[in-house]
Amino acid sequence: MHAVAVLGHGVVGSGVVELILSRGETLRERTREDIFVKRILDIRDFSHLSYAGLFTGKIDDILDDPEIEIVVEVMGGLSPAFEYVREALLKGKSVVTSNKELVAEKGAQLLGLARERGVKLLFEASVGGGIPLIRTLHQSLVADDLVEIAGVLNGTTNFILTRMIQSKMTFEDALCLAREKGFAEADPSADIEGLDTCRKICILASMACGKNVSPQNVKTEGITGVTPKDALYARSAGYVIKLLGEVRTAGPGGSRVSVGPALVPEASPLGCVCDEFNAILIRGKITGDILISGRGAGKEPTAGAVIGDIVQCVLDSKAPPTLFWSEEESELADFSALEERRYLRIEGKEAAKAAREAFGGDLSFLPGQDKTVGEEAFLTPPMTEAALCEALERLKDCRVLGKIRVRG
Amino acid sequence: MHAVAVLGHGVVGSGVVELILSRGETLRERTREDIFVKRILDIRDFSHLSYAGLFTGKIDDILDDPEIEIVVEVMGGLSPAFEYVREALLKGKSVVTSNKELVAEKGAQLLGLARERGVKLLFEASVGGGIPLIRTLHQSLVADDLVEIAGVLNGTTNFILTRMIQSKMTFEDALCLAREKGFAEADPSADIEGLDTCRKICILASMACGKNVSPQNVKTEGITGVTPKDALYARSAGYVIKLLGEVRTAGPGGSRVSVGPALVPEASPLGCVCDEFNAILIRGKITGDILISGRGAGKEPTAGAVIGDIVQCVLDSKAPPTLFWSEEESELADFSALEERRYLRIEGKEAAKAAREAFGGDLSFLPGQDKTVGEEAFLTPPMTEAALCEALERLKDCRVLGKIRVRG
Repeated sequence: MHAVAVLGHGVVGSGVVELILSRGETLRERTREDIFVKRILDIRDFSHLSYAGLFTGKIDDILDDPEIEIVVEVMGGLSPAFEYVREALLKGKSVVTSNKELVAEKGAQLLGLARERGVKLLFEASVGGGIPLIRTLHQSLVADDLVEIAGVLNGTTNFILTRMIQSKMTFEDALCLAREKGFAEADPSADIEGLDTCRKICILASMACGKNVSPQNVKTEGITGVTPKDALYARSAGYVIKLLGEVRTAGPGGSRVSVGPALVPEASPLGCVCDEFNAILIRGKITGDILISGRGAGKEPTAGAVIGDIVQCVLDSKAPPTLFWSEEESELADFSALEERRYLRIEGKEAAKAAREAFGGDLSFLPGQDKTVGEEAFLTPPMTEAALCEALERLKDCRVLGKIRVRG
Repeated sequence: MHAVAVLGHGVVGSGVVELILSRGETLRERTREDIFVKRILDIRDFSHLSYAGLFTGKIDDILDDPEIEIVVEVMGGLSPAFEYVREALLKGKSVVTSNKELVAEKGAQLLGLARERGVKLLFEASVGGGIPLIRTLHQSLVADDLVEIAGVLNGTTNFILTRMIQSKMTFEDALCLAREKGFAEADPSADIEGLDTCRKICILASMACGKNVSPQNVKTEGITGVTPKDALYARSAGYVIKLLGEVRTAGPGGSRVSVGPALVPEASPLGCVCDEFNAILIRGKITGDILISGRGAGKEPTAGAVIGDIVQCVLDSKAPPTLFWSEEESELADFSALEERRYLRIEGKEAAKAAREAFGGDLSFLPGQDKTVGEEAFLTPPMTEAALCEALERLKDCRVLGKIRVRG
């Protein structure tokens, strides 16, 4: 008998409780273990539910109950989630969480505590909903040397960008449609400004580096500056625009971690990931590229991922050693030395000529320019940020309307 | 200290030994366990190797050594691999294998033995090389209800089909190119006739069904009948041709398991998987679709998957309960009741008219017909195999040149 407590009876929390209730028999059959929900922490009134008797408003009813073996934290936010999880670990309970903010900000500390107490802290549901990204990555990390991680990790922005590309919608219209379909929250700023992707890539980067990567140290750009015009130009050259979270390990001076829009070849594995789907590309020295994709959100998939972690708590006696990183902050390389191609859209008198003068001859101009306004779009050769700045200074009488890196 | 013995020093076997030797320190750091190769079974002369002292020609040197905890079987073939693995399990050793023939034919028996003796039999490398297909599937199986598995599981045939589609090569030329690039063996018949895919889908189907699915019970068709013309017609309608292994569970009368070429939408997740890449789509009731793809073969990726399994043997004390199926044979539904669309290519006088008369009006004729020879290609409405046969009998004065199902 393994007693579980669920902190928070929101979308994911109710999904977890319902899954354990409705699939208890199946779970028992498959795992040969008995898993049940003993307590649910939520101060709201759920007296109409068949399992109303399980609710409590007091965290101590859970923390002080020695029978409760696993605490599922699905409240979201940093406080009081952090304090509750910390206490649970201190009391020798394993914790399963879907809270990406908590794992990104406090993961190192909590994982250290879990290791010290010989319990587990699992967080599959915190990145990619029901897609087993964390599991696939930590398996890769055991036998392989990780070269790169690149992920489309936010369904809201991928939906918006896909609609801008495929249906030529404006950002605002696409956001409205995302809201209608339930893919965007009332306040979508964490999504569209890249913070959500940043938290997720920080979790993956911390795993990959073995040391903490804090969201505040990661250069993060959202998609609010991307226009349908940019999407159209990009497509004319065989690219789509994706909001990517990326980690490149083993560079000089440390790993590179970044979040921002990028031009990705349309026919590439990440270019194929459309609408609300998420995907992650894991490039290992031994295994080469592995891509894993699916719906990255939703009540049932996320709750399913939580159940998977609960089962792992019950079945595996040892915590996966690669599902860990230390509190020491990772040394991150700065990007200024990195040579990358850029997509640029400029406006001005004789823009093409000005661009050639500023960047040299080796430019790929994209078809479909709006000549009436003197607009040009082109791809630069690979160049550093400093070289780009210099070239932009040389770009006389032109205004830069769009600037997006090209994933090489 | 965990002693490993490797049976067979071929491509994969030497890869496993080299990885353990070259990455021993890293493995130790990451797993906090000490894994080393104690013995290698191979009768050939490897006296030039730095680790020549590890070789033996006698299996009993391995089976009778109580220090050897894990036996890695990478010999291939059924005999003596089966006898050796059986003995190893009987002696209380865990076994890791990359041998798909062994797992497809004898998996149930060996898994039963492993469970009885409290040891593990892991086989990640038997399907999809370094891509963690088995792991992802068995995780899905714990918390989810599996609806469908569909996989591009053979790199050789996917490479050939991709070249036929993208470069308009004939089957023979594409096969030659695959051989040149090392993607096809001297005798490619197991690949191109679908047997390799059949063994792999049987392993996945057995896991999904919990009961054995024998290769001899699965309708298997290869790709030797596919022509560049079919590829061209398919593409004109937005499809590509893939050799698929498929499992559909929970149908009336049992699961459906099949291997054969199919038209797949070009822009779909499986349609995007090109060249020597493999992919598997896992459709769960809770999680929805998960796609995982990567290079499905090669010395290093396959050896990496074996190392991953070795690490799991060392770290996890309990065998994953869903990595098991019973010896009882799965009840498989026959396909005759299944309504599917078909792609047909026919030749004859007034072929279009004949087709309309035989199949009714609801046909999608594909552009690009070679009118000079009276050829027509079209997609039928969804129909059963029996209805198709009846319609084909009504198809007067026409010869059927191509017939491929459309994945719906």
